[in-house]
Amino acid sequence: MGLTQIEKFVPGARWLRGYNAQFAVADLIAGITVGLTVLPQGLAYATLAGLEPQYGLYSAFVGGLVYALMGGCREVTIGPTALLALMTSRHTGLGGESGPHFAILLCFLAGIVELLMAVLRLGALVDLISLPVTVGFTSATALIIGASQLKALLGIRGGSGSGFAETIKAVVMRFGEARVPDSILGFVSIAILLALRKLKDVKTPQDASKGRKALGITFWVIATARNALLVLITSSIAFYFDQNGQRPFILTGTVKSGIPGFQLPPFSTQISGANNTLVDLNFKDMVSELGVNIALVPVIAVLGNVAISKAFGGSGINPTKELVALSLSNVFGSFFSSIPVTGSFSRSAVNHASGVKTPIGGIYTGTLVLLALGLLTPYFQYIPKAALSAVIISAVIFMIEYEVIRPLWRCNKRELIPGAVTFVLSLVVGVELGLLAGVLADLAFVVYRTARPVLTVDVTSTSTEVQYIVIRPRHSLLYFPAVEWVRNVISKAIKKHGNIPIVLDCRIVHEFDYTAATGLGALRKELDAKKVPLVVLGASVEVRKMLKETLKSTLLEANSEEELEVVLQELCNEGKRAELREVVSPLLSPTTDHQKVPISIDEE
Amino acid sequence: MGLTQIEKFVPGARWLRGYNAQFAVADLIAGITVGLTVLPQGLAYATLAGLEPQYGLYSAFVGGLVYALMGGCREVTIGPTALLALMTSRHTGLGGESGPHFAILLCFLAGIVELLMAVLRLGALVDLISLPVTVGFTSATALIIGASQLKALLGIRGGSGSGFAETIKAVVMRFGEARVPDSILGFVSIAILLALRKLKDVKTPQDASKGRKALGITFWVIATARNALLVLITSSIAFYFDQNGQRPFILTGTVKSGIPGFQLPPFSTQISGANNTLVDLNFKDMVSELGVNIALVPVIAVLGNVAISKAFGGSGINPTKELVALSLSNVFGSFFSSIPVTGSFSRSAVNHASGVKTPIGGIYTGTLVLLALGLLTPYFQYIPKAALSAVIISAVIFMIEYEVIRPLWRCNKRELIPGAVTFVLSLVVGVELGLLAGVLADLAFVVYRTARPVLTVDVTSTSTEVQYIVIRPRHSLLYFPAVEWVRNVISKAIKKHGNIPIVLDCRIVHEFDYTAATGLGALRKELDAKKVPLVVLGASVEVRKMLKETLKSTLLEANSEEELEVVLQELCNEGKRAELREVVSPLLSPTTDHQKVPISIDEE
Repeated sequence: MGLTQIEKFVPGARWLRGYNAQFAVADLIAGITVGLTVLPQGLAYATLAGLEPQYGLYSAFVGGLVYALMGGCREVTIGPTALLALMTSRHTGLGGESGPHFAILLCFLAGIVELLMAVLRLGALVDLISLPVTVGFTSATALIIGASQLKALLGIRGGSGSGFAETIKAVVMRFGEARVPDSILGFVSIAILLALRKLKDVKTPQDASKGRKALGITFWVIATARNALLVLITSSIAFYFDQNGQRPFILTGTVKSGIPGFQLPPFSTQISGANNTLVDLNFKDMVSELGVNIALVPVIAVLGNVAISKAFGGSGINPTKELVALSLSNVFGSFFSSIPVTGSFSRSAVNHASGVKTPIGGIYTGTLVLLALGLLTPYFQYIPKAALSAVIISAVIFMIEYEVIRPLWRCNKRELIPGAVTFVLSLVVGVELGLLAGVLADLAFVVYRTARPVLTVDVTSTSTEVQYIVIRPRHSLLYFPAVEWVRNVISKAIKKHGNIPIVLDCRIVHEFDYTAATGLGALRKELDAKKVPLVVLGASVEVRKMLKETLKSTLLEANSEEELEVVLQELCNEGKRAELREVVSPLLSPTTDHQKVPISIDEE
Repeated sequence: MGLTQIEKFVPGARWLRGYNAQFAVADLIAGITVGLTVLPQGLAYATLAGLEPQYGLYSAFVGGLVYALMGGCREVTIGPTALLALMTSRHTGLGGESGPHFAILLCFLAGIVELLMAVLRLGALVDLISLPVTVGFTSATALIIGASQLKALLGIRGGSGSGFAETIKAVVMRFGEARVPDSILGFVSIAILLALRKLKDVKTPQDASKGRKALGITFWVIATARNALLVLITSSIAFYFDQNGQRPFILTGTVKSGIPGFQLPPFSTQISGANNTLVDLNFKDMVSELGVNIALVPVIAVLGNVAISKAFGGSGINPTKELVALSLSNVFGSFFSSIPVTGSFSRSAVNHASGVKTPIGGIYTGTLVLLALGLLTPYFQYIPKAALSAVIISAVIFMIEYEVIRPLWRCNKRELIPGAVTFVLSLVVGVELGLLAGVLADLAFVVYRTARPVLTVDVTSTSTEVQYIVIRPRHSLLYFPAVEWVRNVISKAIKKHGNIPIVLDCRIVHEFDYTAATGLGALRKELDAKKVPLVVLGASVEVRKMLKETLKSTLLEANSEEELEVVLQELCNEGKRAELREVVSPLLSPTTDHQKVPISIDEE
């Protein structure tokens, strides 16, 4: 089996073509840099998900390995993210041992759903999420995540509330319990992180001295590894105090050491019931607890992943293969106690900036995480919680986007609505409902536009001074929801301009449906009763076929402006003759008269 | 206060303008004819709704009176219909006295919801129900109603099952209990009704003799009053047997005599619980039992009413005023123990054919019904149940429509799907879900069309032999769900045809949204990397504004084919110069070169 055949099943194999030492070094550097980012983020996001810190590390190595084998975009790094951690946290507060169980099962099920989406080609569902909705969703999520970290940042003990308002309220109510050392550490940490982030933007001129260039590289390394540095420094401080018998900060506490065993995800669990009893939950109970998140976590994961691979890989990326890679990262991850994972935008950017050449970098990241699990966990207990909160807060701050508001306000205020609906409902009711409502608001407008197409109504006349009304839909579909609306517009036009011929300009209408065709037939009958002729201008072959099949008799048609002139002139002559006939009817035989006057354009 | 001012509040007042003896006679004849139809139908539909027969008559007089005051279309007759009776029957089987209570409350709430729909201008919601969905819905309903009458037709005792399959199964299982006299009466009745219906179609020639004309009128009267005649004859037979001490048929039983009192609709009731006890339900419980039907009954009622008023009144009808008339018919009806009512297509057709001049005919119908309630009820008990079932079955047979299948099959098979979905789900799961699924299937296609617009891709060249790819969307909206699709099509086109300029023909695209504009920007960057120019042809002012606001830099644009030729030629020259520059770059200063070569069309 050649490399090409292997690539059919293991797309990652293509990266081995021409893989050389230079590539290997680049990938090693990038892999380690990403690893230094994911270590503190993993610990922090696990806490955000309501789990012990090690689960963040369990989630941080399988994705990289799987993606190295299956992925198609070198920059993508798969692992825990703030957004998915937040969504997971919904199910980790039921007590007993159920917290990690729910998280791991959710990871497994999300992977299965992603596989189904790949098989059924449902990845395109994320096309239904518009940019304003995405922005509303991520901004609201960032606020919720940020709020959820306030307690830890201020050193207030106890779990955080579930909703945004609740969390803020709890912080305000218990503000008196805030601890000074934690608060100082927290805010200083945020300030340091934001300042270090700025270091990245320090540009080194191309003709700089060697020393200046080395400084530039140092700045970049510090900026990129700022989270790891902060955690290292703050835990060193905490360690120092600890050695002196002092505990000024609330610390992370013992982090379980060792690599997680390979085992099936948990299909049953126990939650705490009344009076310190434990209640057994079977698979069905667990699924019912996870509920809509089984579908929503994959959608959000795919949305994130697609955004990243498009941003870095352009349209050369095969979305279905990406979906399979993501799916396997979750399914295999769940066997190693992972929480739901997806591509991380921030770490992918680090990866890109570190000069990664292939997804093999992910293997080095994974190795680093495994090493940390084996060797560093005794030191993780000294990490102050406030420092981890600072890591999270300074990451999610940049997820709040307001730049889209200005262009939308200027050109298309209507589009602000789905974004605002998503943002507000995500904060007030929950991110799932917020996203759903935003998508529905967007789709409602698509339906609205089809139901109420813009129609222009003009009164004009042919070169021979035959006046007529021309109705011009500025929409390419004439479908059922628009039928009554079009009829009403035409009725009003007749009322206003009198009983002159109506021309329906269908030159940009590419599709008629049955309801619309039937409606046009009813309109024609109504106009016939008023002796108002109806001419259809420039209908396409398909539209004509539909009209012919639906309406038994044919409509007056014209293919071009010139034909329209002829048709209208004939109608005018016909009308005059009919008037004449009423006066002198005894003199003329109506049948012979009719034979003399061709009104169909076919006879021209 | 003049008539014009009264008309503002009582639109029916306009019918009094020029109302004369001739009109009065015409309305009287039509009113009585409709009355003869509604009497047997009312008794039958009440049974269909699971109530005692008199409730059908209680529902048959208020609508006519209200519509005479408020209505805008002389043919419309409002009263009980098979469809609404079927929907009501869902809630009348809970025992105790709750049957009529739920029906009357549903009538009241439906009226309130209709009023809300009128105030919020939501009548347009029925625009979302396409013809194929309507046909699927009414056909399925007709089958369900027909099936529900089989037991009574065959003389099998006991209530009917709830679903279509259940009902059919129950009839098959209990076929052995069928009673011969009832079955004979039932099938003969159906045969007679269908035969009498045909009498209507007997045409009298214009030059017929006086006797022939009288015969024609007699035929018409018999055809129109066939239900009343059948009920009269069959109950006379039953009465005759009864006088001789025989009871071969299952009879309707005592019908409560007298006009219902004016009273508030019931806001609490009692249903039967376990062990013959009664369970109290308050208003909230009742509303929760009625559930989605509180919204669906009004939608179906409005759909029926709109269809009738459009069919007879054309687009001169004000839908909001019709909605108010319908709403008040239900609200006031519920004070007289009515079940939900709407316009009846069959009775409106009878009204039209009887030569009605104004809705005042409804007052005569109502009077006839009240007289029947006062005087005829003792005789109604002799009406055989099989005869009423025959009345219902021969009415709903004609609601099954299959004529729409042929044109759809020929032109647009896709449109069969929403109709089929509605039909099948209505039969299998229930009419509410069937209708909802059908509407969603229709709307999904509207969204799909926007997400996957037809794009034509052509390779062509200018008169000066500059080759380019032109991408032409055949859709007037370029919205978020289509963005990735369009990008993919363009990527494929470049892969296939090489790196030649791309022209996006936006001449029929009237709307871009923010996501699409952003996507176009990303595409441009991607193409820039490949040195493929992107030209937007014929974008409207709004589209240009959107693109300019969203993308910081401007796109290459052309307003017409001629401008396009110029732009492409310039791009070609520019490309050649760039190649030249690469060879001879030391000789030329790039800045001055750039100043000499205007590539923007503004400088032409």
